Formats: sequence, C-alpha cells, structure tokens
Amino acid sequence: MRNPSLSPTLLASADFPGPRYHLEEPLPLDSGALLANVTIAYETYGTLNADKSNAILVCHALTGDQYAASSNPITGKTGWWHLAIGAGKPIDTDKYFVICSNVLGSCCGSTGPRDTNSETGKPYGTEFPTVTIGDMVRAQQWLITKHLGIEKLFAVVGASMGGMQALQWAVAYPEAMHSVVAIACSYRHTAQNIAFHEVGRQAIIADLEWHGGEYLSKAATPHRGLAVARMAAHITYLSESSLHEKFGRKLQNRETISYGFEADFQVESYLRHQGMTFVDRFDANSYLYLTRAVDYFDLSADYGGNLAKTFSDKPRYCIISLSSDWLFPTSEHKAIVRALNAVAANVSFVEIDTQRGHDAFLLHEPEFHTILRSYLQTNALQTGL
Amino acid sequence: MRNPSLSPTLLASADFPGPRYHLEEPLPLDSGALLANVTIAYETYGTLNADKSNAILVCHALTGDQYAASSNPITGKTGWWHLAIGAGKPIDTDKYFVICSNVLGSCCGSTGPRDTNSETGKPYGTEFPTVTIGDMVRAQQWLITKHLGIEKLFAVVGASMGGMQALQWAVAYPEAMHSVVAIACSYRHTAQNIAFHEVGRQAIIADLEWHGGEYLSKAATPHRGLAVARMAAHITYLSESSLHEKFGRKLQNRETISYGFEADFQVESYLRHQGMTFVDRFDANSYLYLTRAVDYFDLSADYGGNLAKTFSDKPRYCIISLSSDWLFPTSEHKAIVRALNAVAANVSFVEIDTQRGHDAFLLHEPEFHTILRSYLQTNALQTGL
Repeated sequence: MRNPSLSPTLLASADFPGPRYHLEEPLPLDSGALLANVTIAYETYGTLNADKSNAILVCHALTGDQYAASSNPITGKTGWWHLAIGAGKPIDTDKYFVICSNVLGSCCGSTGPRDTNSETGKPYGTEFPTVTIGDMVRAQQWLITKHLGIEKLFAVVGASMGGMQALQWAVAYPEAMHSVVAIACSYRHTAQNIAFHEVGRQAIIADLEWHGGEYLSKAATPHRGLAVARMAAHITYLSESSLHEKFGRKLQNRETISYGFEADFQVESYLRHQGMTFVDRFDANSYLYLTRAVDYFDLSADYGGNLAKTFSDKPRYCIISLSSDWLFPTSEHKAIVRALNAVAANVSFVEIDTQRGHDAFLLHEPEFHTILRSYLQTNALQTGL
Repeated sequence: MRNPSLSPTLLASADFPGPRYHLEEPLPLDSGALLANVTIAYETYGTLNADKSNAILVCHALTGDQYAASSNPITGKTGWWHLAIGAGKPIDTDKYFVICSNVLGSCCGSTGPRDTNSETGKPYGTEFPTVTIGDMVRAQQWLITKHLGIEKLFAVVGASMGGMQALQWAVAYPEAMHSVVAIACSYRHTAQNIAFHEVGRQAIIADLEWHGGEYLSKAATPHRGLAVARMAAHITYLSESSLHEKFGRKLQNRETISYGFEADFQVESYLRHQGMTFVDRFDANSYLYLTRAVDYFDLSADYGGNLAKTFSDKPRYCIISLSSDWLFPTSEHKAIVRALNAVAANVSFVEIDTQRGHDAFLLHEPEFHTILRSYLQTNALQTGL
C-alpha cells in the first residue's frame, strides 16, 4: 500500500513573480476586521487604451492564480485560461487589456495565511482573518481604481468562484463595469457543495502535520490531507459521463487486477496524481480559507433569500452554464437569470452542451468560446471599442 | 478550529454477540489464496419451516452488519432494516426465516483484517488477503448449505453492496434460490464510484496513525482518516435535493455565520457527526478491504463486458432502483434488466420515486415496501409457501 511521503517545498510570495499592489490602507473586511499590509499580486495582458475603456478583469477559481494567460512559475504550465485569453482568442488581447489578480487569502503572491503577521512576526496560519468573496472583490476594486486608475471596466469575467466574484462585483459596484460574464457558478453555495468543502477541510485538519494550522513554523505541511481534499474536490469538477468515457474501469499499466491496494484503475492513478501535484503548488491553510469564503457566499442572504432584490438593472449580464456541470448545475444559473429578469436587467443566458462537467470552462469548447467572443464583441461595438 | 481527538475503543469480535459458523475448511478466494480459520457471524429472525423452504438471505451494505432487524450491540440502535424485516413487515418474519450474515472482511464478528493471523499471532492488518464480492458470497453459501442445511433459499435480498451480493448469488449459484431481489446497486462499480472509494482509502492511508495498516499492534487507530472517508461517502448516499431540503444553508445553533471554521452550517455539523460516530463502530482496514471488493465487482468482466452472458434464465429477478440515487442510478439497473431480458429471464423492474437518494432503501418508503412485500408474496404463492 502506498503511504505518501512527499515533502513539498514551502513556497513563498517571492516564488511568484509579477507586479504587486500594496494597499495604501488597511482593508475593511466583511467580518468587521481590518487587515493591514495587504498585497495583491496580478498580471496583465494586452494594452490599456488611452481612455482606459478596454479593461477586462478576469477572476480566477478556487485554486487558480493570476497567471491566466501566462506560464505558472511553479508548475511551468501554460496559463489556466490560455484557450480563452490571448491575441485573436475570445478574450482578445489585441483589443482588450486583461487584468487577473490573485485573490485575497490565496497563496500565489497575494496576502494570505502563509504570510507573516506583522504584529507577531510569525506566519498568520489560522490567525488570518476569515475572508469572503466580498472582501476579495473589495481588494480587486482598490487595485482597479486606486492602483490602475481605471474608473469603469469594460467587463468582469469569471467562472466557478470567479463567477461568484463577477456577480459580487455587479452587486457591490453596479456602475463600475459595462458587463458581467458569470460562468459555471451560483449566487450561493448549496448544501451538497458545502458538504464537499467540509470533507476537504476536515481532511486537512485531520492531518497531524497541520499542527493546529501552525505547520509553517514547524517546517511541516499537511500535504497528505491536502491531497485527499483535492482528490475529493476533483471528482466534483468532472461529470460522471466524462469519468466513464475517459477511464471507465480501465486498468493502469496492467492486464488484470492486482488483488491489492495499488492504483489498479486508471481513475485511481489519475486522482492520486491530481492530489500529489496540487500540494506542490497550494497552501493548505489557503485552501481552508478559500473554501470557507465560497461556502459563505450567498447574494440573497441580505434580502431574506430574495435574490432579485440584490440586483439592479446595471450592468449588462451574460450567464453561462455547462450542461453536465453537477457542481453548479444549470438550475442555479436559471435562478440568477430569473432574478435579473425581475429587475429588468439586460441579461443573456446560454447553456453550453458539453459532457465534460464543471471543468469544461477550462477546456477546448468551441461553442463556449464562440459565445464568449461574440458577447464581448457585441458589447465592444455598443461602447464604441 | 476543531482538531479531532477521539479515542475510539478497539472493538473485538467478542463485542458482537450471536451465533457463529466456523468454516470446516479453508475458504478458496478469487485471488487464488486459501483463507484458513474463517468465522462467519450471523443472525436469524423467524422460524425455519419443516422443509426448509422459507429462508430468505438478506445481504448487507458496505458498512452494514448482521443485526438487520435487531439492536446493534455497539450503537444500541435498532437494526438497519427494521422497517423492512419483522412480523407483518415486507419481509415478514411470521412467514419467512430471515438470515443475515456479516460479510467476510468486515469487523462485526466475521473474519477480517482485525482478526489474529494464526500464522503470525498478530492481527492480519494489510496481510489479510484481498476479498471479493464472490468470496463473500462463497462464505455465505457454505453457511447456508453446510451449516444451516438449507438446499434452496426462497430468496436472496440485498441493497447497495448487498444487491451486488444478491446478483453474485444468482450468477454463481443460479439453482440455489427461487428469486433474487437486487436494490439500488449495479453489476459493476463505475469510475466515479471507484473515485469516491479511492478518496476514502487515501484519507485512511494518509492518517499517520494508520501505521502502514498495523495500527492495532500499536494501540492506535486512524480514526481521523476514517471519519473523513465516511464523510465523503455519506454525501454520495444522499441526493442533492434531500440535502437541500434537509439542510439548505441553515445554520447550526447560531443566528449568523461565525467567520471561522466552526460547523456554522447544519450540513457540516451533520457530516462531522456521521464521521465521528462511524469510527466507534467500524475498523479502518475493513473499510479499505470492503471498498476494494466493491470496486473490483464487475459481473461482465469474465465475458468481455457482455453482461447477458453472465446470467442464466434462473432464478426469478426483481430489480429495484431509487429515482434520486446518483450512486447507483436507474440507468445501471436498466442495464441489468436488459441483460436479463436477453436471456429470457423472469424479471420485474421498478423505479421507486423518491427524493431521498441512495439511502432511501433504509427509510420509510411506502411504495418500496409495498413492492418488496408483494413481490415476495407472489413468489410465496408460486412456491406453495
């Protein structure tokens, strides 16, 4: 039987090159706390035009990063959305100025639980304040307005947790963008999704090397627990039919079952690989904080569950769901569309027919890319871009 | 943050009272190994009639036990299928003699990895041979024929892993029963289901207190990992709609979110409870072995994926699916029914309309109970019972 004995390198902010925005003042958080010394790491692609009217903010998903269209310095892989962002691509960098920032609480250069708490001189660990999607978006809004000096974004685009941020932008700053594109997301996390996140968190917390969250000061990492958390989450990113299609019951490098606990099945080998590579690039405490932020997300909460009341008729919306996404099914998107219709917002909605589940937004999906491209183009014409 | 510090008692076979069958000879296993000194713990309900024609074998699910209709000695809870088995109930003990045995590899009195290996004098741990659904059924068949002297069962009934055993009985011993009732199961485990099992196994193996499987000789238990495994599995036992209905985003004993990692949401509290209580009644290594047995199950494997070839036109079949069961969806059952039709078997099929997911077979589901009752009654008339 395999007993993982990985020793992932402890990554530091300096391992993630690129521009930084050091917030001028402490950031007020939804919890009521003030967070001092906040840094936001970001990347940009394309050129900001003279009247600063062509900027698109791209929001990343749970374990994403700012390297949306450029190589990740740790994994060496091309950017997670390189199929969607680039010259001549749906989010065309010949036309638009694309900004992607690492979210508050993450671990790729923006301030998070791995960073040093200036009050104690030690890593924050679980002393880091709880952050919300609203807090992430507030930090982004400071980046866009105070640092980059952009008054109005052309668009905010995001999928998964990035879609939640896009919706949050629309609610918090409805005049701050021309349009919002929210993909494969929801206006609130469901019980089943909270349950999967809780499994992941408990897997990390159960790891004795988590040390109550203080593993950094003990030169340890709860990489076993984090790998299990990733494995559980990864199942939810794929559809049952894509797992069946891709792996079925196919065996890994063998003709017959081993009658043991090796990764006999390809799907086991694949999942183990997903878990093991994840721990090399992600911080366990960040995983706790970001999953919590997603669980807490509920745009309807302030209005007793009445989602329509949270929206105004600005900005313009494009809501895109993926037919085989069971993490954020089409029904969740339809609830958003109904609420937007109730306030007479300008909303487009499309369900992309795909068998590849939630992660399809990262993959080669021509119909999706065509819609993303043409929605942006139509809006560009309207704004005179 | 919660860091589990449970110390579950190490249970022994003697903690599970009831009759035992000590196999006369070593049991041949599908892996080719011979397992000596096998004991099978079982329970019976009702009275065997004079010609031994009224016996129903009930097969339990993954973490079930022999106490199908009587109190579990560890948890004190009424039997897991007390709603289905008893005087006047669908499996009517006024009429039938019901046998339920703890499966080989489990930990409630039947031989499993927690038991002492007579060759080494130490607990088997991961030295226990890999067992299959076929091996479990072989041991049951010896119990029924050699020990209880029953030549032909009236029925074999099971749900989930119990349904797999029921199908295995039909394939291995088609003349040994009048009818088979297979509920909420499949003829083979899918990639997604293998993936969920693999997450559970890795959660156990990742626990430093698993000690390479030798935790018993170190007076330790990987209870944290086992609890996480149970939490992950438990999500698959419930439907998304039942989780939404039961918990939604309701908070647990609080008015507002805590901005922390407490179990703010009821669904978190519920899952943690499921994990914590499970470790008091189940052995971690048994969990590894039984999930593996289910993963390996594939009735079509010997016939190049042609399921029909595995079945004969005996016995009679009743296949029951649960409409909201996403672990074993109705489509899996229809594949069984199609294969049975191809060999002109006598097969009844029904999909029970329920929103409660896989675990609905354990719950108060009048339509399900009516069908179970009437199917058995019809067959009883035919056999002159």
